Amino acid sequence: MVSTRQWHLASRPTGEPTMENFDLVTVDLDDPGPGEVLVRTLYQSVDPYMRGRMRDAESYEEPWDVGEPMQAGVVAEVVQSNHDGYESGDIVTGELLWAEHAIADGDELRPVNPDHGPISTALGTLGMPGVTAYFGMLDVAEPTPGDTVVVSAAAGAVGSVAGQLARLAGARVVGTAGSDEKVKWLTDELGFDAAINYKETDDLGRAMAEACPNGIDAYFDNVGGPITDAVWPLLNVRSRVAVCGQISIYNATEVPTGPRKLAKLIESRARVEGLLVRDYEDRWGEALRRLSTFIQNDEIRYRQHTVEGFENAPDAFLGLFEGDNIGKQLVQVGEYEA
Amino acid sequence: MVSTRQWHLASRPTGEPTMENFDLVTVDLDDPGPGEVLVRTLYQSVDPYMRGRMRDAESYEEPWDVGEPMQAGVVAEVVQSNHDGYESGDIVTGELLWAEHAIADGDELRPVNPDHGPISTALGTLGMPGVTAYFGMLDVAEPTPGDTVVVSAAAGAVGSVAGQLARLAGARVVGTAGSDEKVKWLTDELGFDAAINYKETDDLGRAMAEACPNGIDAYFDNVGGPITDAVWPLLNVRSRVAVCGQISIYNATEVPTGPRKLAKLIESRARVEGLLVRDYEDRWGEALRRLSTFIQNDEIRYRQHTVEGFENAPDAFLGLFEGDNIGKQLVQVGEYEA
Repeated sequence: MVSTRQWHLASRPTGEPTMENFDLVTVDLDDPGPGEVLVRTLYQSVDPYMRGRMRDAESYEEPWDVGEPMQAGVVAEVVQSNHDGYESGDIVTGELLWAEHAIADGDELRPVNPDHGPISTALGTLGMPGVTAYFGMLDVAEPTPGDTVVVSAAAGAVGSVAGQLARLAGARVVGTAGSDEKVKWLTDELGFDAAINYKETDDLGRAMAEACPNGIDAYFDNVGGPITDAVWPLLNVRSRVAVCGQISIYNATEVPTGPRKLAKLIESRARVEGLLVRDYEDRWGEALRRLSTFIQNDEIRYRQHTVEGFENAPDAFLGLFEGDNIGKQLVQVGEYEA
Repeated sequence: MVSTRQWHLASRPTGEPTMENFDLVTVDLDDPGPGEVLVRTLYQSVDPYMRGRMRDAESYEEPWDVGEPMQAGVVAEVVQSNHDGYESGDIVTGELLWAEHAIADGDELRPVNPDHGPISTALGTLGMPGVTAYFGMLDVAEPTPGDTVVVSAAAGAVGSVAGQLARLAGARVVGTAGSDEKVKWLTDELGFDAAINYKETDDLGRAMAEACPNGIDAYFDNVGGPITDAVWPLLNVRSRVAVCGQISIYNATEVPTGPRKLAKLIESRARVEGLLVRDYEDRWGEALRRLSTFIQNDEIRYRQHTVEGFENAPDAFLGLFEGDNIGKQLVQVGEYEA
């Protein structure tokens, strides 16, 4: 029997989540049953979509229950296995818990090969965020050579991959981000053609128009709100908008309002479409193979922002809404020697 | 030489247009040149999209010039022809002027066969509004059997055809309209499964939810604003929104605001797409053949709302924003004996 710490949802936040919404609890785990494995978490992911699960509202994900552990993508080491596919010491990834140890159904895990690069990328560029960027950009936003493509939250886990995929597709890529350091990373390291620090821009509409003199053919939106308002008037005929996230409103306590936008779609015949990565489960392998190759060839670069210590997981999550992270936000939960 | 009356744009409206924005002018027409015909207008169309052309702003249509005649779809009789395709007495349709007589390039006209039904339908069900409904519903909203489809401004020229096409495609059809008479026409004559008089409804969101207990799979939007706000929370997974018009905001003097809506698209993976009928020019004949057959078979019904007298054309146009019309709004300009 193993004792583990878990983060539970203590209460549902109103507006911005705070530490009071989280509860650090120690529990005893049962031994793994048939087909199950006991794992030790090495890295835990925190993601903006988790804000939705703290809410008591129907959405595309089940809400978390108050007083119960919260789910998270993790990279973990198998400690004890009752599953034919895994043995002790294997590195795996899956949707488990905010926890230092957990019992998992072996069938729900995927192996991670440490020879293919840092195992933590299984939570970022070679995990859910990377796959989201892959299908959102290539299947929904559909950049073609010569297009101007805008990506919001371009220095985030999803946006940074999405923008580089648009660049590889021959598009001119413009990103928005919330610090000069991020803007510099986008233009100097990731090959974005332009980037806008929206926090230092008085007139976002004008800045966007200047960065996109030929209008906008595709928009990969992680943010919504005023950034989307700045993009909208520039949408070209037959442009595409992939709505991947709306982090600017996740903490809203009332339904936020903004300019009514649908008339623009008549003029532009633009297509606006939401996406969820889980719709692409059968093509997950395709995305990972391509992304791996792009990383090996240095055609896609990434950064990770790692907070150390399981006790800091809520801080890492809260930091997402402050824009603390460049690239993928991770929590290092357990020691790991590659 | 023929003398004719024309309606000119006297000034650009601010908000709701008024009679002051229109000027009735008598002008002398030159004789038709080579390839041209002189026509006498029998019916003139007034359409909501014309409001956009009164504005001095770039859009999908050129703005009208102040002091110049305004364009309109007309059905007319050929008086004098210098074009091989037409002779005196032929009935034609085309995009001409708010005028009793006009000179037209014969190549820009289409013949209207009076044996196929009332010639005025070339401006309605068998013209631009019908073709708009045809492609907007079948190519963009894409109803399938068992779907719930909502149509706003369902008693209008476009909406009434769009809703009946959805019914023919096997969908359950719900319309919105602005009077009990319209609602009755939709449900009793056109086969809509339900209709909402939005002007008499306190809680549009609840009324919509009650009319659509299985959610909404497709929405054909002519109106925007609060009706669209009521539809949005009910959008099902993989639903489609065809944005055809936004008459609720055409007279707005400031950018109207409303609830931010894009987050719903993530959960539903809905597709929202604008449409302009001119993108379907090469398939116009397909739509007209199908619509003619549906009318002949009494599978699609229509009504026309005819204002008599060219001097009343501005009134007919202004009435569109009051919802005066059931079905297609027309102006009878000249006498015609079928």
